[in-house]
Order: sequence, then C-alpha cells, then structure tokens
Amino acid sequence: MPESFAITKKNKVRQLNKKAHYDTDTVHRILDAGVVAHVAFIQDGAPIVVPMIYGRDGGTIYLHGARKARVIRLLEQTDQACLNVTLLDGIVLARSAFNSSMNYRSVTVFGKPTLVEGNEDKLHAMNLISEHSMPGRWSELRDSHDREVKMTGVIALKIESASAKISAGKPDDDEADYEIPVWAGVLPVTTTIGILEDDDRLLPGADPSDAVKALQNRTI
Amino acid sequence: MPESFAITKKNKVRQLNKKAHYDTDTVHRILDAGVVAHVAFIQDGAPIVVPMIYGRDGGTIYLHGARKARVIRLLEQTDQACLNVTLLDGIVLARSAFNSSMNYRSVTVFGKPTLVEGNEDKLHAMNLISEHSMPGRWSELRDSHDREVKMTGVIALKIESASAKISAGKPDDDEADYEIPVWAGVLPVTTTIGILEDDDRLLPGADPSDAVKALQNRTI
Repeated sequence: MPESFAITKKNKVRQLNKKAHYDTDTVHRILDAGVVAHVAFIQDGAPIVVPMIYGRDGGTIYLHGARKARVIRLLEQTDQACLNVTLLDGIVLARSAFNSSMNYRSVTVFGKPTLVEGNEDKLHAMNLISEHSMPGRWSELRDSHDREVKMTGVIALKIESASAKISAGKPDDDEADYEIPVWAGVLPVTTTIGILEDDDRLLPGADPSDAVKALQNRTI
Repeated sequence: MPESFAITKKNKVRQLNKKAHYDTDTVHRILDAGVVAHVAFIQDGAPIVVPMIYGRDGGTIYLHGARKARVIRLLEQTDQACLNVTLLDGIVLARSAFNSSMNYRSVTVFGKPTLVEGNEDKLHAMNLISEHSMPGRWSELRDSHDREVKMTGVIALKIESASAKISAGKPDDDEADYEIPVWAGVLPVTTTIGILEDDDRLLPGADPSDAVKALQNRTI
C-alpha cells in the first residue's frame, strides 16, 4: 500500500487546500473513526447517494446490503464509486458569517466496486463490517446461517484514490473584525453512545458482556 | 407544496419499505434536524459525494460554497443532484449478526440545482444556511461585505422528489433466536453540542449572547 495517494483531478482538494491530507494513515484513521459512510453511484445517468455502514481491511472498504438491493446491484455493475465519511467536530462561530465554519474530519474515497463471492470471503467482510460498528459482538453471536450469507450482498471497494480534509481550531477572522465586541469561539460537537437499552425479551441472566459494556459511553 | 411526494423509480424505498415515508412533513423534519448533508453530483461521468451544510425555505434547500468551488460549478451546470441527510440514532444489537442493525432517520432528496444570483436572494439563502446550524447568530454579526457575497456561490435545490426512511426501536430477531441467552438491545447514539470554547482574542465584555448560550447542550 502506498504511503500516500497521488494527487489527481479526482481527489485534489481545491478549497482550503491547507486542510488537505493525502497520506494513507490519515485516510484510514478517519475511516476507522466513522460509522456511517455516504456512497454515491449513478442510476440512469443520475447521481444517487445512500448511507451505509462499512468495514475496512487494509486498503479495501467493505459494504453490504440485501443481495437484491438496488445499491448492491448498481455497485456490482459500475466501475466507479465514491464514498465520503464526515465527522462533525464543532461549529465555529467567527466574528462574521463569512468566516464562520465547521470543524470536521472528512475523507473521500474513489474506487471500483466488486461483488464479493464465496461464503468464506463474504463472512470475512461481514465480520469486519460488524466489528467496525459493534466491536467484540461478532464472537458472541451464533454462526450466520447459510441462507443469511446468501441473502447478503457484499461489495469490496479497493481504495484507488482518496483525500482527507481536516478542519480544527478556533475562528480565523479578518484582522479588522477582531475589533468587533461580539463573542466568538467554538461549539464542540460530540457523538456518544449512551446507556444500554435492554431488549424486552431478554432471557434471565443474559447480561451485557464486557464487550457490550465497553461500547457504552464510547465517543464515535 | 404537495402533502407527499409521488413514489417513482427514483425515490422508491425498496428495502425495509415499511420504514419508508413520503410525506412532506417527515422529509422536512429530518432535514431540519440535520446539520450536514451529503450531496452527490457527476464529474466526467463519475459520481462524487461531498458534505455540505445547508438551509431550507419551504420546498427549497440552499447550499453554498466558494463561488469558484468545483461543487458549486458542477451543481450549477447539472440538471440533477441528489442529497442525503442521515442522523444515526442507535446501534441495534440483535441476537444474530444478520438482524443487527442501526436506528436512524434518513432523508434523500432529488432536484435540479440552480445558481442563485443577485445580492438580495443570495443573502436570503446565506442567512437561512447560517441560521440552520447557528440559530440566532446572523443578527449578532456585522453585515456581509459585498465582496463576501460575490465570493459565495449559492445553489438552490428545489425538492422535486424525496423519500425518508426511519428505523427505530428494539431488535427484531428470528423467533428461534429468542432462546439464545445473549444480551440484546439498543445502544442509543446522541450528538450534542458541548461547552463553549472561547476564542483567544475576545474583547473584554464580549460574552456569549443568550442565542449562543442556547446552542450549548443542544442535541443535534
């Protein structure tokens, strides 16, 4: 895997390009921190974007859905897809509307999607996707039924090109605006997992495992 | 404005279609609750998805960026764009990987983007976008300079078609799996605004206004 992605017309960050990162580590780190990816594809010549959960194995992202789902069928057929994961970290209140902005970590990935076939490869990907949003859960659950694997469509998206954009820190105002006596600063945004909500049909003694309890209070 | 959107090939929810909503109220409510939209468009025949903040005025969504930004130029030229706003509400730990899922509110919008021209119309849209993520802030700030309005590209996306999908509640397991003595339930996910972080160059007495203080501890 290259240490960084080549800058091309496709992945080049044009606006606020000081915030751009093309190294593999940064791209992977943001992918690993997110839960929901937005995946774009084309149907009948028109762009469509759908939210999907995902997993990562080295330079490959895995997506899944119902085998017959439109998103799986169209990703299977296309040779180009684009995926973005954005984590909102803050709302930056500057001294003007123009300089007000957001703090975020964002990554955009381009690649050719392929359908994953064969039970073993599909289960490998399904495990990665599950562990990405529910770490430690997979091994607590019964084995997947063959029927379930068959009903699941799995897509591998090899990361061919990518860029990350990170915005952090305090407002960056016009020098003259620092004379304006208005409050300015950052409203930090955090996404957290709260208190576990028990299912209504738990068996006696079916308490949360340590892995599940570790998810509680986690920041995502 | 129609009370609900016609179901067409474009906006029809195919998977888990009991979770689908096509009424204008639900579509608008999810749009109003989100902060970041993912906007898809086509460049050189390939799909691209970018995160953008937005505002809404009735059946029109406003987006903005640098006037020269790729996203603005391409949205200006295309006659079809798609936008999705997804709010993750929970991670649903079922008794099998197959039935594990997410709770979310998601809305997908289709329409023809147009460039907004003229200072007054642009400022109207810029105000809506600002008020969407920073309610009450616009009136605390100095007027926008003409140069700033000129440098801002504003896109209006009239909502021609839309669908919403809402997933909520506890796991829905296979009947046989309720015999498995594993914990199951929901990990609620919340996104909140934390404690205000002061800019380093605040003037004496430039305290947060009531509007700014009201943003603190808000759930988004």
